[in-house]
Order: sequence, then structure tokens, then C-alpha cells
Amino acid sequence: MKSFFISFEGPDGSGKSTVLEQVVAQIAPKLRAQYLVTREPGGSKIAEQIRQFILDPANIAMSAKTEALLYAASRSQHMAETIIPALEKGQVVFSDRFVDSSLAYQGVGRDLGIEAVKAINDFATSGIEPDVTIFLDVQPEVGLARIAKDHGGQEDRLEQEKLSFHQKVYQGYQWVNQQYSDRIEVVNANRPLSKVVADCVKIVVNRLPKELLKD
Amino acid sequence: MKSFFISFEGPDGSGKSTVLEQVVAQIAPKLRAQYLVTREPGGSKIAEQIRQFILDPANIAMSAKTEALLYAASRSQHMAETIIPALEKGQVVFSDRFVDSSLAYQGVGRDLGIEAVKAINDFATSGIEPDVTIFLDVQPEVGLARIAKDHGGQEDRLEQEKLSFHQKVYQGYQWVNQQYSDRIEVVNANRPLSKVVADCVKIVVNRLPKELLKD
Repeated sequence: MKSFFISFEGPDGSGKSTVLEQVVAQIAPKLRAQYLVTREPGGSKIAEQIRQFILDPANIAMSAKTEALLYAASRSQHMAETIIPALEKGQVVFSDRFVDSSLAYQGVGRDLGIEAVKAINDFATSGIEPDVTIFLDVQPEVGLARIAKDHGGQEDRLEQEKLSFHQKVYQGYQWVNQQYSDRIEVVNANRPLSKVVADCVKIVVNRLPKELLKD
Repeated sequence: MKSFFISFEGPDGSGKSTVLEQVVAQIAPKLRAQYLVTREPGGSKIAEQIRQFILDPANIAMSAKTEALLYAASRSQHMAETIIPALEKGQVVFSDRFVDSSLAYQGVGRDLGIEAVKAINDFATSGIEPDVTIFLDVQPEVGLARIAKDHGGQEDRLEQEKLSFHQKVYQGYQWVNQQYSDRIEVVNANRPLSKVVADCVKIVVNRLPKELLKD
């Protein structure tokens, strides 16, 4: 059965979750197919528990490789319990983050290498990739300033990383966006929310197979 | 600095933990070097938490790939916090289980394939292997009967698997033992404990570099 898989990517503070929510609200009435909104790392009870463990500021001794393997473990469970069953039912799946986050954060941000991180994630996903990925583009400085304002100091273990880490992650995303330019659409997210959402809606509607859309 | 890394492997109920304890007790007085006794999955606070999560009977929905990635994550942390620092200090490290367990349990028992499981573990260990591995050989039927007797029904999620699973794991070990026959020594563990321990002590002493032993 025809299905469709959309992921949203971007640096911390790119407004991903808000944009995703509004994009879904605008696209849902146009869909003939059922849809599922999920997020990484998480999206199932076991996957969420792994997510909490990764992000817990108490786990400061966690090695970069352990972090990468835990993200892959969480993703593997998310695939098995949530994404694969939805795709098999012909649903439209919207995911807040997917493998590209690991390539940028662990592959480049943590210096583990994109190829090595891709290999463990191919194992986790059985090679399933999104049909389209929207990258919300904001400079890491801007993203971090937004987080500091919104979270009032309650940042998770990865958000707490220094600016230099987030700059490396941003460079990682640039590499990923170039490498997978057929799949990834870059949207300038340093503009008013309504404009960003409108662009994303247009991209998704253009890419969605006609049979999943109402006439 | 010269160091030495010994792992103990075997099916559930092979008596590994008891044998390891007695082997260490007999070898310790002969060592010039310091030594460390550790176990997998676990061996550090973060690694132990991952271990508990893997083995929790509540996590019955865990996929085989998630399980394999969590074992690799736990091992990666065990390497970073415990095994690598000990080896760098020139210590003798005794580990209750290591990568071979994942090859047998997840690679063969869970049908994920030995090559795929080896690849994620090479990432986790940076390719570091034990200098010698002792495989305690008991038929899975015998091992399971021992566990049932000892644990009085309090089995973890993997011990609860059916006999057919443990038979596959045992076949997996046969493959691993053949593949790495230079590194792995097979000891018949279906004999009185004192004889099993004596064989293991002889193997370790023969393999230990002379400079780590007292004159």
C-alpha cells in the first residue's frame, strides 16, 4: 500500500516542533490517508525510556559511542513499534528528527565520523529512509538564543553543550543536506513562523503521491 | 605498558560466574600486575543501568535489533569507563562475557547475522579483543536445568527464552569458537567445579605474558 514518510530536521532551537505541529494541522484536512505524528528519539514506551536516559544531565560520563548506539537503539525500537507498522498500513508519517540528526550530532558534532554512524543506523532502520526531509535552517547562535529564552535554564544534556559543538553539528547538517540533496529540502527558518510553515506545506503537498491526497 | 585481557563465555547456566571467581582467586597471588574483575553487560554505572533495562522482563516488546544495539551501547560504555583505562594502566582484566556473547545470542539466537552484530560491536569496542577467551562448554539443556534450580523461577528476560533459542545460541557459540580458534579455548564445564577451574587456571597462566607473573 502507498505510504509516505516525512522527517523534520534542524539545529536545536530551529522551531522544529512548532513548525511540525502547524504543518500537520494544515495538511491533515487535505489527506485521504491516515497520518501519524511521532518524534525521535522516542515514539514508543521503550524508545522513550531510552531517550530519557540519553538526555538525562546526570549521565555526564556517557561516551560519544554509547550515545550514538543508544540513539540507534531508540530509533530501532521506534521503527519496529511505530514507523514500520504505520507505513505498512499506508499511513503518512511525520517524524520530528530521524537518522540525519545522528549523522550531524554524533557523526560530526561528536567526531565519530558520518560513515560509522550511518552504518549503525542502517542496521537500526533496515535502510528505510524518509521520502522527504525538511531542514529548518537557522544559525546555531540564533537557535541557542531561542532555547535559552524558552526553556529558562532547563536544558537537556545535549542542549547544554557549548556553542562550538552546535556549530559543528550545523556543519554536519550542511554536509548531509548536500549529500542527500534529492531528499532534503532546506527552508530558511529565520523568518516569521507563518512563512516557514507555508513553505513546508507547499513542499510536502508537492511531494505527496496524488493518491494520498483528497481530490 | 603490557596488559592482558581475558573473557569468559558460555551458555546460561554454564557456571561462568562461579568459575571466574575461583579462577581469579587462584591466579591473583601469582600476578605481579594489578587486576580488575568485571562483567558484561555492565561494569560501570551507566552500563549497569543499560543492562538492567535490557534484562527487565517488563520490556517484552523490545525488538531484536534494539536489544543488540543496547548491548553494544552498554559494552561501549564499559570499554570507555572500565576496560580501556585498566588496560592502559597495564592491568590484567577478567570479564564475565564480551563480544562473543553478542555474536551468539543476538547474531545467531536472534537471527540478526553474525557479520551485522560484529560490525556494531567493532564500533563499540574500537576493535579491541580479549587476548584469550575461555568458553565453558555445557549443553543448553544442562545449563537451563541448573538455572531453573538455582534461580527458583526468578529468571531475567533472556533466561526466560525457550530451549530452542538457547540451542541456537549454543550453535552460534560453536561457530564463533571455530572462527576464532586461536583466541578461544574450550573447556568442558560438565565436570566437577574444581577440575574446570584447574583447567582454566592452567590456560590463563600459559597465556599470560611472563612479565605480568611473579617469578
